[in-house]
Amino acid sequence: MNYSLKFRVGFHSTKENKPKTFIDAQVPGAVQLDYAKAKNLSPYYYADNYKDYEWMEDVYWTYKSEFNYPGLENNKSCWLVAKGIDFKYEIALNGKVVLSGEGMFTPIEINIQKFLKTQNELAVIIYPVPKVQGAPKGRRQAAETTKPAVSYGWDWHPRLIPSGIWDDFFLAYRPDNFIIESVLDYELVPEKKQAEVNLKVKTNKAGSYKIRWKLIDSDNQVILEKLVPVSETNVLIEDTISNLSLWWPHDHGEPCLYHNQVELLDSEQQVVHEKNDKVGFRSVELVMNDGAWKKPDEFPKSRSVAPAQLKINGRKIFLKGTNWVNPDIFFGKIDEKKYKTHIDLALKANYNVLRIWGGSIINKESFYKYCDEKGILVWQDFPLACNNYQNDRSYMQLLEKEATSIIKRLRNHVSVILWCGGNELFNSWSGMDDQSHALRLLNVLCYKYTPRLPFIATTPLMGMGHGHYIFRDEDTGEEVFQWMRTAKMTAYTEFGMPGPSDINTIKMFMPENEFFPPKRETSWETHHAFNAWTEDTWLCNKTLAHYFGPAATLEELIENGQFLQAEGLKFIYEEARRQKPYCAMALHWCFNEPWPTAANNSIINWPDTPKPAYYSAAAACRPVLASAAFEKFVWRENELFQAEIWLLNDSYKKIPDDELNVFIEFNDKRIHLLQWHYKSPAPDENI
Amino acid sequence: MNYSLKFRVGFHSTKENKPKTFIDAQVPGAVQLDYAKAKNLSPYYYADNYKDYEWMEDVYWTYKSEFNYPGLENNKSCWLVAKGIDFKYEIALNGKVVLSGEGMFTPIEINIQKFLKTQNELAVIIYPVPKVQGAPKGRRQAAETTKPAVSYGWDWHPRLIPSGIWDDFFLAYRPDNFIIESVLDYELVPEKKQAEVNLKVKTNKAGSYKIRWKLIDSDNQVILEKLVPVSETNVLIEDTISNLSLWWPHDHGEPCLYHNQVELLDSEQQVVHEKNDKVGFRSVELVMNDGAWKKPDEFPKSRSVAPAQLKINGRKIFLKGTNWVNPDIFFGKIDEKKYKTHIDLALKANYNVLRIWGGSIINKESFYKYCDEKGILVWQDFPLACNNYQNDRSYMQLLEKEATSIIKRLRNHVSVILWCGGNELFNSWSGMDDQSHALRLLNVLCYKYTPRLPFIATTPLMGMGHGHYIFRDEDTGEEVFQWMRTAKMTAYTEFGMPGPSDINTIKMFMPENEFFPPKRETSWETHHAFNAWTEDTWLCNKTLAHYFGPAATLEELIENGQFLQAEGLKFIYEEARRQKPYCAMALHWCFNEPWPTAANNSIINWPDTPKPAYYSAAAACRPVLASAAFEKFVWRENELFQAEIWLLNDSYKKIPDDELNVFIEFNDKRIHLLQWHYKSPAPDENI
Repeated sequence: MNYSLKFRVGFHSTKENKPKTFIDAQVPGAVQLDYAKAKNLSPYYYADNYKDYEWMEDVYWTYKSEFNYPGLENNKSCWLVAKGIDFKYEIALNGKVVLSGEGMFTPIEINIQKFLKTQNELAVIIYPVPKVQGAPKGRRQAAETTKPAVSYGWDWHPRLIPSGIWDDFFLAYRPDNFIIESVLDYELVPEKKQAEVNLKVKTNKAGSYKIRWKLIDSDNQVILEKLVPVSETNVLIEDTISNLSLWWPHDHGEPCLYHNQVELLDSEQQVVHEKNDKVGFRSVELVMNDGAWKKPDEFPKSRSVAPAQLKINGRKIFLKGTNWVNPDIFFGKIDEKKYKTHIDLALKANYNVLRIWGGSIINKESFYKYCDEKGILVWQDFPLACNNYQNDRSYMQLLEKEATSIIKRLRNHVSVILWCGGNELFNSWSGMDDQSHALRLLNVLCYKYTPRLPFIATTPLMGMGHGHYIFRDEDTGEEVFQWMRTAKMTAYTEFGMPGPSDINTIKMFMPENEFFPPKRETSWETHHAFNAWTEDTWLCNKTLAHYFGPAATLEELIENGQFLQAEGLKFIYEEARRQKPYCAMALHWCFNEPWPTAANNSIINWPDTPKPAYYSAAAACRPVLASAAFEKFVWRENELFQAEIWLLNDSYKKIPDDELNVFIEFNDKRIHLLQWHYKSPAPDENI
Repeated sequence: MNYSLKFRVGFHSTKENKPKTFIDAQVPGAVQLDYAKAKNLSPYYYADNYKDYEWMEDVYWTYKSEFNYPGLENNKSCWLVAKGIDFKYEIALNGKVVLSGEGMFTPIEINIQKFLKTQNELAVIIYPVPKVQGAPKGRRQAAETTKPAVSYGWDWHPRLIPSGIWDDFFLAYRPDNFIIESVLDYELVPEKKQAEVNLKVKTNKAGSYKIRWKLIDSDNQVILEKLVPVSETNVLIEDTISNLSLWWPHDHGEPCLYHNQVELLDSEQQVVHEKNDKVGFRSVELVMNDGAWKKPDEFPKSRSVAPAQLKINGRKIFLKGTNWVNPDIFFGKIDEKKYKTHIDLALKANYNVLRIWGGSIINKESFYKYCDEKGILVWQDFPLACNNYQNDRSYMQLLEKEATSIIKRLRNHVSVILWCGGNELFNSWSGMDDQSHALRLLNVLCYKYTPRLPFIATTPLMGMGHGHYIFRDEDTGEEVFQWMRTAKMTAYTEFGMPGPSDINTIKMFMPENEFFPPKRETSWETHHAFNAWTEDTWLCNKTLAHYFGPAATLEELIENGQFLQAEGLKFIYEEARRQKPYCAMALHWCFNEPWPTAANNSIINWPDTPKPAYYSAAAACRPVLASAAFEKFVWRENELFQAEIWLLNDSYKKIPDDELNVFIEFNDKRIHLLQWHYKSPAPDENI
């Protein structure tokens, strides 16, 4: 049984000072949101209001909760459970410090029974946000922490650094003996639908107990039941299961799950504690791409590229998906409903994978549960992005603690199929390399706890590509249609296409007098339309003017920009698919956004409005579709129009012989160009 | 005190059978050599005699030794110590099996006291050599073992697979309590010549003892002395040392060593056991090459190359060296004298590094000791080469055991500065990749035991180059002068240049009637002059004919071939040096050879005769030298001869202003081309 607490919060300039006043706190949440609500501040996302929040980074915040002694049954004691405190903290009960720590991804469980009185006061002191001493303002300040770097400012994220209790926090009443951890592991032979399973259970106390373990399928049939007497605190139960229904990503089969029930029984056969979760069975490999061994073919010979072809249950899966960023600046606000809304959008876009980008948080449990249930693959970055995370002793200790917590939590989710050390770490702007201790440590920990899951140190690796992030290079005149046709990557793990937001999103944050024409040093700039990366991004005025001439209205500008975004994005997805089987992944940058932007590579506006590019991406990712490859965007009278016509097929189902008709439209005319009677392609084969 | 044993050996067809006869055995040695000696066989290296040894792979061999009960002092017991048994074995004393195992790099120490009688019989049964079931004859048979793959046949090594006791084997009389292990570790601040040192000592038995630890410099000054009482079996002693004399590779300073003495004292302050070794202090980093971060510069962006610039004590060191292969087919024959002869040759060649190639053995202790003493850097491959070592459970267990033994032994040697998973594993002919469990495991183990040493999964990595191995490509006409000028690698970690052996070497193994002209299906072929790699390698008849026309005699052929080898090799070393600082390593393939070859890339003929290329390599590797870069080998009348003139400088010493005179010689004429008054180059700078 769990018991929620009500909190109030206040700030203070030094650790020793107490807050002068306390205000109501929302838990989980963020101190900034509590303060803004109490003071009735104008929204942080309006204009440049976010700048008013900067002082909150550098003060202490104390949460306070008063509660009476909880009525406990016999043989129970009271535990304090916190799933995530952001970031450095001290917890005191009735004036006594019960825990000091740091790390927002490491859960806390403390037996507080001996500290309890009739009336209790719990205090959680949050330290100022971590910053590398002497580093310039921005992401470099996050280079010695596991706190997401994005909060320190990015080309699509303002500098606004949340603090506070960002995940569940409650009291739990636990029996004398209970299950601390139960870990199901298995070695699967997918073609036989057979697995050697083992369950490792760790309990609180040695003694004369029993563990009852059940696996129950979706028809409520018990497919495994074991009752094992326990004397030590560590128990290992092994068995072999046959006739399994495998877990598949949604576009390749059913994401079958089993109910996994682990019960602890006392000497009178009473269940004193139980753990319940959903498990699935699948194998994962990351193997060499088709044709990748053929290179290098000249002397001196270097190595072949890094493997980038995913196999699930022995089957090659072309990964179509996107890069997931925090759907809100304030992690504490992100809840199950938000996750489900966004994951449902990803499903409707025909995506089978989400890469959880390393600048973001590790998501809460409800995210991974829903991915398990819906058959969405999860590529999980560790929280390192675009920095040189050095071999500093205290950072390495923090990373080891946090990474261990992350791995031990996420290994229970069948949807998690790839670990990645972090974002763009082997590029000049980060400056890490294969010898970086942080990445060697992550490899060590992943191998230790999840040896059957692939680990990559970062993305891009050799052969993979990030970018480009524009429709047209205004210096060279090169368009996406040209660079994508010449690029030959094993995996496009990030590619972007910027577009302006719709008018309703813009109205959320922009004063009306700034609407048109878009100008520097207005909300257009603070919301990333200018100077986000280059001076002209992400609005890309020059490119819009090149194709459409000057826009007369805001609506026209938005329509033009969103049209380019939709067309560019569609082309990249389809071209990446045409490059299959050498190419094995197409992941767009980026799916969502943490606040309302003026222009951005996202295809979902904050909080959850799809842009036109969302629909073009969804169309481009259909398992079977007709596709045209052409070499440029604009065609004029008297030019010879040329295109390749493809049938793209990522499906393993039989596609019957059929015909495909090609039309061209211009000046309101529609001309039938050709009829192609195609023969049934092989599974997963393009023709 | 140690006690040697005399052995006899015999073979048998099944494990249960006993040998019919026993012959004298040399330990360390190899069963093949014992058998050949007893039967007075013609040398294995003569003609194709090695084929007569093949049956010996597939039988059991039993070593037998009879000895009386050793007279032991009080409180001592008798231990059996074996430093290396090749490969799978069972040890029985007086009919009782005391150990079964496999793995030639894992030492054995067994307390046999309780098994001893007045008269004793020790038996060591060697199993048939390990082979992957169903694999074709050749190196593929070695893909599930740590036994060196080279023995199974290579392009410069016959198929001849040694078996037996290949390193020291003796009885040791040990006190009641003794030092099992003492490990010195340190964190060095090289610019301060200061180190935080710690010594971890593991003893046999808890109790009331003391550890006395001394570090003594080369002038016999004690720079550290600690006396620490012991109660547990694990002791940690820490201290900080200043004014250290750092260990440097011989071409950058003195390879300073300290005597490290660890004594175990009993309650009466008597030394009951001690360990003595030589230690040095140096830091090692593998960092990005100068200019390497500038790439990639186009979209989509992949990663930058892998770091390949070594730093010792914070100083960039251009690595000049070679790939070391077994200097003998029979590992058991390799002794300290052999090692010293070869390492002395490497020193005289101005080499500062030896890469111990992954197809070979891990060398015996005397090798690393001499490298420590002489200031030769050691790049150590693990025993994986050109195979796909799969994630097979029993192989992984063997690899973990062997690699742990290798790391724990070699970490005590200051000369060992780089771990490498093995040879060319990320190339098509091996088929391993970043996800291979064997390589992830090696990274884990290296990080666990030697976190301060760099680890690379294999060579080549991204940016590094292997090859080419010929002077001229007879299909394209391209010469080494062209491909080396266009190659731009971070490190040339293998490049070869074949040449025939001298007449005396050839006489060792070739019947006189085969001498001239060289023909296929003679000793020329069995000794690698033909069909070793391509049909024409390693003699390269077509290339010789191209430059010199048909040779009239064997002597002329050898002279021409050795001339090309010397010139080609010299050019590669110098061109790699010219490409500094982006390029940071030049390692030739290969230094030595395991038996007398007819033609090979080696520059030392078996057993230890330098070829002319040895001297040209030595000249090309002088720290400071004048060098000419030209674009082809042959220049004819009326052609414009062009060359770049360089002063190559790998030294950190001040090179004074001076003049350099360039001459050209032809038709016995010598013409002075130019006089260059150069200004003193910066340390480590070419001009």
